[in-house]
Amino acid sequence: MREEVDRARTNMRSSAEGRQLGEEFWELHERKLRGMQDGIDRNQAFLNAVVGFQDSSSPFPLADGEKRVPGDPSRTTKAQVSKINTTLRQCMRDWSGEGEEERRESYGAVIAELERLRPVDPRRRGAQKVLVPGAGEGRLAYEIVSRGYGCAGNEFSYFMLMVSNFILNGVGEENEFTLSPFVDNTCNTFSVEDMLRTIRVPDVCPPLTLAGEADLDFSYVSGEWLACYEDQASAFDAIVTVFFLDTAPVVVEYIAAIARLLKEGGVWINFGPLLYHWSDSSLRKTDERFQRSVELSWEEIRIVCACYGLDIVREERQDATYNADQRSMMRTAYTGILCSAVKRSKPDAKGLS
Amino acid sequence: MREEVDRARTNMRSSAEGRQLGEEFWELHERKLRGMQDGIDRNQAFLNAVVGFQDSSSPFPLADGEKRVPGDPSRTTKAQVSKINTTLRQCMRDWSGEGEEERRESYGAVIAELERLRPVDPRRRGAQKVLVPGAGEGRLAYEIVSRGYGCAGNEFSYFMLMVSNFILNGVGEENEFTLSPFVDNTCNTFSVEDMLRTIRVPDVCPPLTLAGEADLDFSYVSGEWLACYEDQASAFDAIVTVFFLDTAPVVVEYIAAIARLLKEGGVWINFGPLLYHWSDSSLRKTDERFQRSVELSWEEIRIVCACYGLDIVREERQDATYNADQRSMMRTAYTGILCSAVKRSKPDAKGLS
Repeated sequence: MREEVDRARTNMRSSAEGRQLGEEFWELHERKLRGMQDGIDRNQAFLNAVVGFQDSSSPFPLADGEKRVPGDPSRTTKAQVSKINTTLRQCMRDWSGEGEEERRESYGAVIAELERLRPVDPRRRGAQKVLVPGAGEGRLAYEIVSRGYGCAGNEFSYFMLMVSNFILNGVGEENEFTLSPFVDNTCNTFSVEDMLRTIRVPDVCPPLTLAGEADLDFSYVSGEWLACYEDQASAFDAIVTVFFLDTAPVVVEYIAAIARLLKEGGVWINFGPLLYHWSDSSLRKTDERFQRSVELSWEEIRIVCACYGLDIVREERQDATYNADQRSMMRTAYTGILCSAVKRSKPDAKGLS
Repeated sequence: MREEVDRARTNMRSSAEGRQLGEEFWELHERKLRGMQDGIDRNQAFLNAVVGFQDSSSPFPLADGEKRVPGDPSRTTKAQVSKINTTLRQCMRDWSGEGEEERRESYGAVIAELERLRPVDPRRRGAQKVLVPGAGEGRLAYEIVSRGYGCAGNEFSYFMLMVSNFILNGVGEENEFTLSPFVDNTCNTFSVEDMLRTIRVPDVCPPLTLAGEADLDFSYVSGEWLACYEDQASAFDAIVTVFFLDTAPVVVEYIAAIARLLKEGGVWINFGPLLYHWSDSSLRKTDERFQRSVELSWEEIRIVCACYGLDIVREERQDATYNADQRSMMRTAYTGILCSAVKRSKPDAKGLS
């Protein structure tokens, strides 16, 4: 990222047409470059706190006197930088006031459906067990726990796991950190201020808000979810998935596992588009998941659900964004499917249980 | 693309969970795969017609008995496939009824502004000269010519140039061809029908509609526009650009050239976001334009315009899509800047002319 600031400064100064611009331009441009540098430093301070907490809370702590050796930044790959940027944007989505509208569109919609189909009995808080695969930085699982459900979050990405661990367990107060989540993108910008603007995280402080909860049943499991839960069946009252089917190499395997993990009469509540991550042919030679990837339309998935004993009881389209910079000239707009399905008592498809 | 159909068929059949699905599923799934194959054949027939016309209309025709040797499809790169897909989507945008809404948002907006600032005198049709750099498949330039302006379209991409040549000069009637522009994308699909649906092109037939135009002044220049027009100055009454600043490695060079090419009092009308194509750091090692790329916010560009003697007289935000599948679960949504600027008679910035 520092390299990007240097590149911006150099390129603008080496353009003959650029050098002819007046003072007003250069003042604004230098303010932008200084602001980018400040934002990078701000983000780094937060990431250092996340990694520091991970070290201190790890079951495998560093030995006395042992120190983490920082990697050589010049060898950071583009893919790693992109993961860091996604991690910061996800902080915005999950844990800032700026992400509230995005959370309402997706988390809000599935939680309302969960409460409608499986209301909590206030005398038996934590009695119903909910699984959230693809739990990301933890906001959806946190909201479900806060409403009186037991909840197991599951996540694969180490980046997401470290941040969720930090925010769910390590932060001391609301709005403790300031981040610049948009500073990495120099395109599609109306104003310098839009790009440099900061957000505060977290907008709620889970270690404080959950401290008084009696019988809290909240776990977070790391790993690939099909492997984590392969030995379980009929274990959950509800499975809630948001922007998750997208991560399936073979979406039929996901639906079969959801059907197996639900108790009879249990509900699957899903929201998302069908943006299959492993369908990208540039992965042909580097990832075996491309060679297995199956991409089905919603029309086909509906039939798959029925075959696996999941009766769809509600289905509607819902617009949403994901990690979007709402002030940018360019956003990805999703029209996802919000659906809920109930696991049939007696699956009638041939040979399925 | 054929390979993709085979991959889809193989992957679905090799999944253990997939094999357990019933007849209803397989019937729909096979209908999808057959429809994909039909769509691929349909698109190929159109592309063959485009290439055939290019051969027959080329100033360098094939010698008698010489035949075009098709390349080996297995060696087609992902980048080439992506360009073909973009070319077909652009046919939808520029030359189909389905693209009408997209054209209204961008072409419609800039044309209305052109007619407001530089109305055509019906007694002097073709008198005002308009330049359209980044003219793509030619619809915007065609619309400008049809309204009584002289127009020079300029385009760099050989794919776009071949299709614009074909549609502006080679088609015989409205709706002559049927295309399947969405068949390449198996993600984010509600129904099989959405993915397989066809469009008809062209919705107007330029060789027929322009046949009766007296004094038609319509040219199409191929090549990189800064190089094509480097020796000209004060040559145009208007320059109209849509989704074009995005293609600039150094946007200041583009604005300086626009200012130079306009007559005094001439107008620049622009619509688009600021999606700088050469800012992608994955180009670091393969394209020198990344090493020169300058990405400015609109706030900075405004000052650049003033320095180069372009007085912005109108500026507003306008939502638009580009080559979007309106039935997909995922679309890129732009909020572009619609702006017009007038070239000052006496530029007052230091040393600029």
